[in-house]
Amino acid sequence: MNIAPGGDRLHAQIEFALEIDKLKRVIRRNTLMDGSRRENDAEHSWYIGMLAMVLGEHAPPGTDLDRVVAMLLVHDLVEIDAGDTFVYDRAAVAAQGELERKAADRIFGLLPEEQAKRLRELWEEFEERRTPEARFARALDRFAPMLANHRTEGGTWSLYKVTAEQVLENVKIIEEGSPALGAYAAEMVELSVSRGHLARS
Amino acid sequence: MNIAPGGDRLHAQIEFALEIDKLKRVIRRNTLMDGSRRENDAEHSWYIGMLAMVLGEHAPPGTDLDRVVAMLLVHDLVEIDAGDTFVYDRAAVAAQGELERKAADRIFGLLPEEQAKRLRELWEEFEERRTPEARFARALDRFAPMLANHRTEGGTWSLYKVTAEQVLENVKIIEEGSPALGAYAAEMVELSVSRGHLARS
Ligand SMILES: [Ca+2]
Repeated sequence: MNIAPGGDRLHAQIEFALEIDKLKRVIRRNTLMDGSRRENDAEHSWYIGMLAMVLGEHAPPGTDLDRVVAMLLVHDLVEIDAGDTFVYDRAAVAAQGELERKAADRIFGLLPEEQAKRLRELWEEFEERRTPEARFARALDRFAPMLANHRTEGGTWSLYKVTAEQVLENVKIIEEGSPALGAYAAEMVELSVSRGHLARS
Repeated sequence: MNIAPGGDRLHAQIEFALEIDKLKRVIRRNTLMDGSRRENDAEHSWYIGMLAMVLGEHAPPGTDLDRVVAMLLVHDLVEIDAGDTFVYDRAAVAAQGELERKAADRIFGLLPEEQAKRLRELWEEFEERRTPEARFARALDRFAPMLANHRTEGGTWSLYKVTAEQVLENVKIIEEGSPALGAYAAEMVELSVSRGHLARS
């Protein structure tokens, strides 16, 4: 096509747009809240973006929620190349870093340079978990599948033989981003254990 | 559960979170960019939120892109009750208004009052298309399926016997939100017609 002015930028952006559509085909371990099927990364990213908008008051005061939303929309893009890693598979999580960096080079690299840089910085901020925005974003990323497992009477937990102790490691990550959501998550774990949907090790 | 302080608000927010998960099961007419399956409203909402981040420079100067993203994340929530309306089915589009208002009452109404109001305002702004933010958001909402139809050699257009004249009505809506994207969309239509993937009436 022959678009001007700024046509080269627009073409690069459209190439990126076509590429990231693939996130809809990256399938996660957890299911929808009704257990009907496994969730994909794109709808998951929408969902936790919405959670940021709705649960924002449970982040530390001053947290930039627009930045949290932006971070959550891009946080899984690298999985187009690197695939989803099951959070309880520690060996896979460790091997994932290099794969994801290469994926970030390739995928963000489709964009005009300063845009590539801006989006990659959002992803790196999410990964590094140093800012309140990144910690809250990570908390929501862990909170959503926990809610789904709680609602589906154990869901992925029983399927993959995850223990309460392992889930409590994730509760800590939620607490670091939001004490209120951490407390809520801890109660979900307690309830799931007491109902027999989550086993202690 | 027994969360305090702010526990009532959190409980209402979690009820809302559980409810909106259903958007992942609202199926649209258009397919993914590779034609492999039809798209759902949740992944569609993520996708056009990403487009707002990436194509924002093609909105009028001064457009608040964070607000565009927020608007796009909530814009289809009413379809949990009202269902997706095929944009080329004019009779269905006309009947949809009342259904969607009722859906907005019920779904946003699950939230604490001032949050319900804030999210409902985003949805109404999107529907009314009076602000640059809403017009740009609507442009992206129309642009994405057009891109998918163009990439899948006519996709939904040929399936539902949509004509070039009908698609050009949508190109106008895209132009109103972004002249550059409107020009790009008009070129896609021309190309699709010349390749025999879209018929003139
Ligand atoms: Ca729609």
